[in-house]
Amino acid sequence: MSDPSPVTTLTDDDCWEMLHAQEFGRLAFHLADEVHLVPINYAVDADRRLVFRTAEGSKLLGLTMNADVAFEIDEFTEDEATSVVIRGRARQLEHHEEAETELLPLRPWVNTAKFNTIVIEVDEITGRRFGLTRPWLHMKPHED
Amino acid sequence: MSDPSPVTTLTDDDCWEMLHAQEFGRLAFHLADEVHLVPINYAVDADRRLVFRTAEGSKLLGLTMNADVAFEIDEFTEDEATSVVIRGRARQLEHHEEAETELLPLRPWVNTAKFNTIVIEVDEITGRRFGLTRPWLHMKPHED
Repeated sequence: MSDPSPVTTLTDDDCWEMLHAQEFGRLAFHLADEVHLVPINYAVDADRRLVFRTAEGSKLLGLTMNADVAFEIDEFTEDEATSVVIRGRARQLEHHEEAETELLPLRPWVNTAKFNTIVIEVDEITGRRFGLTRPWLHMKPHED
Repeated sequence: MSDPSPVTTLTDDDCWEMLHAQEFGRLAFHLADEVHLVPINYAVDADRRLVFRTAEGSKLLGLTMNADVAFEIDEFTEDEATSVVIRGRARQLEHHEEAETELLPLRPWVNTAKFNTIVIEVDEITGRRFGLTRPWLHMKPHED
């Protein structure tokens, strides 16, 4: 019997291609001694940093106290799941740095006049593809 | 002009319905002083705990040192994104507790003979739906 759940590793280039192709991911960050997780709309800039915007006063500004973050995107088909995970450091851009991000296809999800721009410097990128066997689908009684 | 990015809050029941309907999410957890993020295949048990399996020796066993976790699922349409985020505490089940999870539609992604079963006791559940305006799509030059 063949291995029902093979895992393959993506190359870094494959990971970046997927990061460029998508626009939503999930950011995990420290807030005091807790781990928090939020969906974000992001873009990749010319220096391969992830950029996103957040409403002023958002709890994401906990990033200014602990820059350590993880970020994930994924995609699914019937047969496989592909996930790219980044670990890195987040930093809020100063006003004079924000201009360079203005042309990125990026908006805060919450409509607000005031926002902060955060960049994530990527330290580590890992991509994996999982075969999905869903054996329980075959265990269901037929309905027809 | 109407608000281009309304956010609505889901009821707890809506959140649980979405948790029951899906099977993949992302788990954020502490590993030493870092935050880590992995995609997982999960199920919801009769006590509204999230259950997943992980290969023996996985770094997820860092959970035994710091049980504080966050977990997220989401879904997208052309016009809106819906995200459910849980905060809770993870615990590895003892062998005598594992039998009750055997009928859940749940398999470790990595095929392995030995796995551990983890449950997340949910402390907090938050669901939000975001309108997606993607203003940059309208800024693209027409191609026809």
